[in-house]
Amino acid sequence: MQITDILARKRDGHPLSDGEISHFVQAYARGELPDYQAAAFLMAVFLRGMSSAETTALTLAMAASGAQLDWSDLLPYAVDKHSSGGLGDTTTLVVLPLVAACGVPVVKMSGRGLGHSGGTLDKIEAISGFRHQLSEAEMRAQVEDIGLALAGQSAALAPADGKFYALRDVTATVNSIPLIAASIMSKKLAGGAQGIVLDVKVGSGAFTAELPEARQLAREMVAVGRAAGRDMVALIADMNQPLGRAVGNALEVAEACRTLCHNPPTRLREHCLIVASAMLQLARAADPQIGTSWPQEARRELEARLADGSAFAKFQQLVAAQGGDPRQLEDMHRLPQPRLQEVIPAHRSGYLNAIDATALGRACTALGAGRLRKEDDIDPAVGLVMRAELGDALERGAPLLTIYANDEGRLAAARHLLAGGEGSVSRQGDARRLSPFRIDEDRCEPPPLIHETIAGVAGNSATGNATQ
Amino acid sequence: MQITDILARKRDGHPLSDGEISHFVQAYARGELPDYQAAAFLMAVFLRGMSSAETTALTLAMAASGAQLDWSDLLPYAVDKHSSGGLGDTTTLVVLPLVAACGVPVVKMSGRGLGHSGGTLDKIEAISGFRHQLSEAEMRAQVEDIGLALAGQSAALAPADGKFYALRDVTATVNSIPLIAASIMSKKLAGGAQGIVLDVKVGSGAFTAELPEARQLAREMVAVGRAAGRDMVALIADMNQPLGRAVGNALEVAEACRTLCHNPPTRLREHCLIVASAMLQLARAADPQIGTSWPQEARRELEARLADGSAFAKFQQLVAAQGGDPRQLEDMHRLPQPRLQEVIPAHRSGYLNAIDATALGRACTALGAGRLRKEDDIDPAVGLVMRAELGDALERGAPLLTIYANDEGRLAAARHLLAGGEGSVSRQGDARRLSPFRIDEDRCEPPPLIHETIAGVAGNSATGNATQ
Repeated sequence: MQITDILARKRDGHPLSDGEISHFVQAYARGELPDYQAAAFLMAVFLRGMSSAETTALTLAMAASGAQLDWSDLLPYAVDKHSSGGLGDTTTLVVLPLVAACGVPVVKMSGRGLGHSGGTLDKIEAISGFRHQLSEAEMRAQVEDIGLALAGQSAALAPADGKFYALRDVTATVNSIPLIAASIMSKKLAGGAQGIVLDVKVGSGAFTAELPEARQLAREMVAVGRAAGRDMVALIADMNQPLGRAVGNALEVAEACRTLCHNPPTRLREHCLIVASAMLQLARAADPQIGTSWPQEARRELEARLADGSAFAKFQQLVAAQGGDPRQLEDMHRLPQPRLQEVIPAHRSGYLNAIDATALGRACTALGAGRLRKEDDIDPAVGLVMRAELGDALERGAPLLTIYANDEGRLAAARHLLAGGEGSVSRQGDARRLSPFRIDEDRCEPPPLIHETIAGVAGNSATGNATQ
Repeated sequence: MQITDILARKRDGHPLSDGEISHFVQAYARGELPDYQAAAFLMAVFLRGMSSAETTALTLAMAASGAQLDWSDLLPYAVDKHSSGGLGDTTTLVVLPLVAACGVPVVKMSGRGLGHSGGTLDKIEAISGFRHQLSEAEMRAQVEDIGLALAGQSAALAPADGKFYALRDVTATVNSIPLIAASIMSKKLAGGAQGIVLDVKVGSGAFTAELPEARQLAREMVAVGRAAGRDMVALIADMNQPLGRAVGNALEVAEACRTLCHNPPTRLREHCLIVASAMLQLARAADPQIGTSWPQEARRELEARLADGSAFAKFQQLVAAQGGDPRQLEDMHRLPQPRLQEVIPAHRSGYLNAIDATALGRACTALGAGRLRKEDDIDPAVGLVMRAELGDALERGAPLLTIYANDEGRLAAARHLLAGGEGSVSRQGDARRLSPFRIDEDRCEPPPLIHETIAGVAGNSATGNATQ
């Protein structure tokens, strides 16, 4: 099988066979195929696309390129989740202890973030002493002990994905649906979960800005998971504004704790209940003692675990088990604290109808809450907290958000990105600077929390392709 | 300027600026840009194409990546030609001495061939002792002395093209019009010619099988040359059958000698007269003593140089000056001789209406006349000689061509590719084998020798965009 023939077929828009894709990925993973041929392949895939069958073959070949975990001797049913991230997305920190508190064990591997604020690992590292480098044996022992483990992504899983990802980053081939789907799903499949809940974001603060793209990505991932015999639920969740109120690592840990302890009906709480419910339903449906679990039952059970404090207790257990200081969860002032704060006011009266979430992300990066490059350090204390959300009525001068900073220069950079109005002129006087917040006289209906749900579950009549 | 931004712009179909293209090519030529980014660029260009302005910028940047020759102190007007090759294309060996015999000095750099039969260098090496590795000083001395030099392509000219070409070969990005145009024209521009005649082939034996593609390639190259201030003529010549009767290195040298000595009106002779006429007209038009030269005058002058033996004498001078044995040109039996020959007969009576020139090329490669890989050796003696051409009436059993071979196994392989008929079954009995020669009851009009002429010449009203 000639590599150039495979390249030419993809270049000309012909579908590749499973054998061709597997040969290509294996050769690349083993170092037998040079980066330049992989780069030509990635650009051809970016521009020509891939069928579901091809994306599945790519994912399976990448998953098979390294270790493949198997929890079946330890757990009755391994359930996992993936959030495609965005602003103020603290879902993992809330959902993991919540599901585990219902008696469903969870082993989760997470990554770091690039851009915006950090990834789950960056967030939880705001807690002093938290150790995420767990061996497989440590993960197994901990999940047997407390039913929950949160580890850093292991380089032993889907190493081909690591090589492809690094190459995509430098060849302008990141934003391709089949390549994103294969990257996410290869790690999930190698991680050994039988049930996988995907939390795919769409909107101005997400990787995929438009619903058709997000839907296609979700469908591809569900199809790949089904082809690999896994139970799949994909939620297409809105990211036209920060999911939680807080954006920034310690600020988000604090918000996760509040969400686990208190019951105000926030958007983050509702989102976490939906994700956790999908995970719980998958696990319950697979349990022959229980069988099909209806959304209402799952919801009631999850709300009870929040109300009785057991979900928050599970989070404290997790933090303690991995070397973190659980007192920081009880007393938020023990988390890293920012030195400076400044309120950004509304530039006019009216309804908050749109937020340029990208500008908020850039402001967080400017503050030091996120990374531009892998090797950048992040400041766990800084970030911002929203004081309004889409659809809110505001008076001119009312607080839109609070910036938290540790450095005057960085604060000024964030203010520059977040302040402004329809007619304001920058300090240099040379450019009109628009506010990232659109405030109108008439109110637009805010987007729903979940746009769609796509499910593919073995022999379960309670789910299917449904739109919520 | 970020390389990934340039890649993303080309990937998304946006035109690149001159500065972006020049930055990319310079960085790659200097070794500052890895092959994988160049590979992603080539695949994006292959799939997104390039405007004329982009192709020009790419060509100029590649031409500027190494030495740029200048003959203006030595020659009143440097004229060059490029043939895109094909089967039995001995044009260079005939045209060079013919034009030089008219008093127009020619310095030509040629390459080797891949596939089919060899390139010009491979052909002329069938002459014992011929030395093509000339320094610039040797080229200058020889052109001053005899008005003609034929050297191997110098690695010092357009080194970026060498790097891109090697990468295209292994990334399935060879057959792209802007990349082909830039590759050919960057070497021609760096070679320092003021007037360039392009002999672009179209048909079943050519790189570009269809006229619209060949036209686009020719137009791109003329536009690039014009933008660089050169006088350009592109001829779109037919390659639906071998240009000369002979295909194979020594066989083609012998045919070139016959064409220079004798006057039967063969297709090769006519083609060479058209190419030589274009070169002569460019040189004459640039001479203030002469000015515009009309096709009829150029033609008469060239025919006179063939008739009086001075063109053939110039070829002998060239061979002698570069260490070759000119006696081999007088007595063809002194050229490498094949040991075996076999005639392929017509499988039915009728008119020869089509030839699968690709099958003829494969047969020549099987015989050892051409290379599959750069490092392959070639056998100068072997090849084939056509005994019929398109439009000829044939009786069943009449000779179609003669195969010349040095090895029984290779002869059998060539026979297998060239024999066959409408209803014949291969020896294995498992596949119908069609003859590469289509013989019908009714005669089709054979294609013209030249399909179109595209010219772009500074301040010369005698040329323009013309269709012949």
